[in-house]
Amino acid sequence: MTEATSDTMSSWLSREELDSARERLPILYVDAVPVRVDSQGALLHVALLLRASGKGEITRSLVSGRVLYGERVRAALLRHLEKDLGPLALPRVPPSPQPFTVAEHFPHEGVTPFHDPRQHAVSLAYIVPVEGDCDPQQDALELTWFTPEEALMESVLAEMGGGQDVLLQHALRHLGC
Amino acid sequence: MTEATSDTMSSWLSREELDSARERLPILYVDAVPVRVDSQGALLHVALLLRASGKGEITRSLVSGRVLYGERVRAALLRHLEKDLGPLALPRVPPSPQPFTVAEHFPHEGVTPFHDPRQHAVSLAYIVPVEGDCDPQQDALELTWFTPEEALMESVLAEMGGGQDVLLQHALRHLGC
Amino acid sequence: MTEATSDTMSSWLSREELDSARERLPILYVDAVPVRVDSQGALLHVALLLRASGKGEITRSLVSGRVLYGERVRAALLRHLEKDLGPLALPRVPPSPQPFTVAEHFPHEGVTPFHDPRQHAVSLAYIVPVEGDCDPQQDALELTWFTPEEALMESVLAEMGGGQDVLLQHALRHLGC
Amino acid sequence: MTEATSDTMSSWLSREELDSARERLPILYVDAVPVRVDSQGALLHVALLLRASGKGEITRSLVSGRVLYGERVRAALLRHLEKDLGPLALPRVPPSPQPFTVAEHFPHEGVTPFHDPRQHAVSLAYIVPVEGDCDPQQDALELTWFTPEEALMESVLAEMGGGQDVLLQHALRHLGC
Repeated sequence: MTEATSDTMSSWLSREELDSARERLPILYVDAVPVRVDSQGALLHVALLLRASGKGEITRSLVSGRVLYGERVRAALLRHLEKDLGPLALPRVPPSPQPFTVAEHFPHEGVTPFHDPRQHAVSLAYIVPVEGDCDPQQDALELTWFTPEEALMESVLAEMGGGQDVLLQHALRHLGC
Repeated sequence: MTEATSDTMSSWLSREELDSARERLPILYVDAVPVRVDSQGALLHVALLLRASGKGEITRSLVSGRVLYGERVRAALLRHLEKDLGPLALPRVPPSPQPFTVAEHFPHEGVTPFHDPRQHAVSLAYIVPVEGDCDPQQDALELTWFTPEEALMESVLAEMGGGQDVLLQHALRHLGC
Repeated sequence: MTEATSDTMSSWLSREELDSARERLPILYVDAVPVRVDSQGALLHVALLLRASGKGEITRSLVSGRVLYGERVRAALLRHLEKDLGPLALPRVPPSPQPFTVAEHFPHEGVTPFHDPRQHAVSLAYIVPVEGDCDPQQDALELTWFTPEEALMESVLAEMGGGQDVLLQHALRHLGC
Repeated sequence: MTEATSDTMSSWLSREELDSARERLPILYVDAVPVRVDSQGALLHVALLLRASGKGEITRSLVSGRVLYGERVRAALLRHLEKDLGPLALPRVPPSPQPFTVAEHFPHEGVTPFHDPRQHAVSLAYIVPVEGDCDPQQDALELTWFTPEEALMESVLAEMGGGQDVLLQHALRHLGC
């Protein structure tokens, strides 16, 4: 169902129209931090995607994407998680709509720690435990599970762009690390 | 400065363009629940605006409005609070961007408790203590301060439309009432 | 393991010593609101326990209990959920320690909406999705699953004591109802 | 009034009795992160106290202390802020009881990032804007205001003990830094 909904809604907006909207309105996004937890709900691992950027750079990123017209925030989270982690990931979207933070991405750097050269995007960020098997999909080369200690290493954080390193650190602190 | 920013940005989008965007994209809003607190931060009163709707109905509402392109969420909160409560209200916008909830308004009723016939609007909701003098501005007829008990009365909640009664109840529970 | 931990720790404090501590210190509690959610994480049902009070009254309640010396908050949540819902309930304790609220129970009524004649108790409240089979245990007569609409009915709320009706309403609002 | 309340309640528990309780029960604490914000509520500076520990070491710390029997959490926050920042600090205790996190301190290191050799302490952590003049009181040698960038420097974090560096980092992330 998520698939069908997504297909239908993508057609709401042509590439051209989306580009135009991106110059006029803040665009609503969701960010998901996929985690593995133990039987008490305590954090074991966090997942980062490895992608090749257009310029041939390798970057690590969280699951992230746009909320479509008519789409629930929780449906958008599931759609992007399925797109990046595959259909068998079994994500547990949190029952409350309260995000752990809101990340405001501006086209110009320095307004906030978050930056998106394409647009003014406002992202609702959630922690999402996943219980199934994850398989990188589409443009993701690889999915890597890190312990909290590994994820907080300078070398890992340095591979994340646009302020996602700040969001990841926030997520890990929010989880009590 | 808020004023200037607001003027400039309103011109980003003509009425026609905004109408078109409203049929294609979720529109980002903020909701503010203006409160008076005592010296320990405990809730004393909550403010509701009295407005005349287009159809001549009288409704009560929270402070609410759109986030503009290039505008920080906290600047949008201040702009709408100033517009509705006047320039001397001295609102204390919360230091954290984490909203107490996210209200998803759909053009069709029943998807969530929130409803907006004009658009798919996603609203970040914040509690905002105000310390100064409030004066209803623009299309608001009156500003009324209610004790928590008064605000939770059926007769008051019934005068709020679009699910704002649900948001108000949530705000009061969130404040420990 | 939870069991073993619990047994050991209960012996930390005799009944007499606990009674004495209750007159001197705020006692740390957890409250859990057990819920069933759909595949998108949206609320379907909330569980309330039916108990017979000492005076022969029938009351409905959330899952609630003390945090023991040396016990993690998440271990206390699991222990009380297992005690009340049985060992097959499969509760998903949230990964973040941030509670949706803190309920302060005082021995005298009226300080907050929460009241506990035995003690000054401060309770960290969490929403906990349960995925398995629930069976009322120990002093609980029955476990009933309510839709959000049913749970918000006056007749149901009236059967809850000590301010738990306020906590339940808050939980349901927090979940977007 | 806070003073009077505090005096009365301290006498609830002798030093001996408190020591005994500390071996049997988790003790409820509050942590306050004192901040200066601009007119939009955005973080400008965070305050850290400089103290001399019993062993002659110099450490930096947040405002922190016990919740007394019969005391509201918000009253405890105000009492400890006044004790450490002086009577003219004008702290704005947040209107909602929801803490941004809960820090569980165990007597043994490694269970969580938080550690307190004296006791099992569970601390509710809040961000508190202060608007007045601060003067270090009692055992605090000095109060220093740091920009977010300064506060996140390794050299500053290294001067904080018991996991307070983790709590400070969390607070700054929570504020959008």
